[in-house]
Amino acid sequence: MKVAYLGPDGSFTHAVASRSFSYDELVPSANITEVIKFYENGSVDYAIVPVENSIEGSVHETLDYLFHHDDIEAVAEIIQPIKQQLLAIDTHRPIEKILSHPQAIAQGKQYIETHYPHATIETTASTAYAARYVAEHPELALAAIAPLQAANTYHLQVIAKNIQEIDENYTRFWVLGKNAPHLSLTKESSKITLALTLPDNIPGALYKALSVFAWRNIDLTKIESRPLKTVLGEYFFIIDLLVLEEKVITYALEELKTLGITSKILGNYQVYRI
Amino acid sequence: MKVAYLGPDGSFTHAVASRSFSYDELVPSANITEVIKFYENGSVDYAIVPVENSIEGSVHETLDYLFHHDDIEAVAEIIQPIKQQLLAIDTHRPIEKILSHPQAIAQGKQYIETHYPHATIETTASTAYAARYVAEHPELALAAIAPLQAANTYHLQVIAKNIQEIDENYTRFWVLGKNAPHLSLTKESSKITLALTLPDNIPGALYKALSVFAWRNIDLTKIESRPLKTVLGEYFFIIDLLVLEEKVITYALEELKTLGITSKILGNYQVYRI
Repeated sequence: MKVAYLGPDGSFTHAVASRSFSYDELVPSANITEVIKFYENGSVDYAIVPVENSIEGSVHETLDYLFHHDDIEAVAEIIQPIKQQLLAIDTHRPIEKILSHPQAIAQGKQYIETHYPHATIETTASTAYAARYVAEHPELALAAIAPLQAANTYHLQVIAKNIQEIDENYTRFWVLGKNAPHLSLTKESSKITLALTLPDNIPGALYKALSVFAWRNIDLTKIESRPLKTVLGEYFFIIDLLVLEEKVITYALEELKTLGITSKILGNYQVYRI
Repeated sequence: MKVAYLGPDGSFTHAVASRSFSYDELVPSANITEVIKFYENGSVDYAIVPVENSIEGSVHETLDYLFHHDDIEAVAEIIQPIKQQLLAIDTHRPIEKILSHPQAIAQGKQYIETHYPHATIETTASTAYAARYVAEHPELALAAIAPLQAANTYHLQVIAKNIQEIDENYTRFWVLGKNAPHLSLTKESSKITLALTLPDNIPGALYKALSVFAWRNIDLTKIESRPLKTVLGEYFFIIDLLVLEEKVITYALEELKTLGITSKILGNYQVYRI
């Protein structure tokens, strides 16, 4: 099977892809829209894209694409803890400059200030890019903050392990596909993600929509408004529901329809944790 | 007066700061937390930070900081349209490589593919950084996708104007301070942003919270759940309310309290549009 993922090699999505689809052919792409398009045009069987980070929030490029395009659904969710490593070519050389994505630099700030107070900091477009740059410039006194996967990919040494400050940092990845894949990971729960388009203005309509779930004791684990991009001030809503009994959700969706609320299923999936 | 903003020079926040506080001393900082800390420790009178982009969504670094720290409030909101320019040292030289932030590259993709199909694309950590790099390397055949402000700051020429594909792209910036500033911009509306912490699980409690606003006909323009970062699966909610009569909102907040729902005001502000 072929599986597209958000690259480059050594990225967190790459780590998720190699762990979940270790026997399959992995195809990287540099941006989310292209990864999804690979799946859409049939070049791959599955596509893996990030959907939410606990610190940075939702990945709107993923959610908006699924909302605006038909027939693409998440069939599995994989939660990956985000742990940052300090990587260099070898453990003995001095480190004068540290490269990484701004978010990773922010996460490792305390460690860097304590251990490398005189190092110059340079921001890059991704953590994997920083690691690759370090690997390609052995003549310079460089280090990168990047995931463990990048150490393997670019043959770098881990100088310091798990330097991130906030431990509660994880990213949700979605596997897009026709059928649920068989993954040898720990199953956690079952969820459905809906996009709701309301017939008139909030809060009235949103209140009605939530009542459909509230009286059925269906638990929401996430709600977020997104601009519709047609008229300023018009929104759709992304809602994550915990599925205990799928039949109850089916009834809820039918009731939404009678209220004039359009619902689109963006995903119906098992949640796995790495 | 002193006003801190998210730099570097030439960023969109810089454009907002120079337009709104043209007679004041502007102090840049490279990350959002530091900009807010400048205000918090009294080094500046106001701080300007991005809070939401219509494509990328909320800036959680800003919202989470305000939620977790006391006594910092938004006293004005400024909406800035995001327009991307193709910048180079002069209009006559060839362009072999184009640099920018991944989001700006995505926005200008169609233009680049039509006009510079053979150019190499290189991602940078910010649009302003790309512009600075182009200015510092006159010996190379480079261009940057960056805001107009960056052309002024780094003395670059505009090769192509407004190359972004989606016109509905704007960013909301918050001015943090003690008192509402006097800005010579167009006033649009008046809003309050609340962070709600619910006593028990959603959807029940969220449904109750929304009912407080729904029956008073208070319009919500945004709702978003955010992890509390204490226990996995516990959330707070960010809600934007349109203020028609402030007294009605005061009553709503009192009713929330009687329901056991904690509300924190993150901002109470006039909305201005550039």
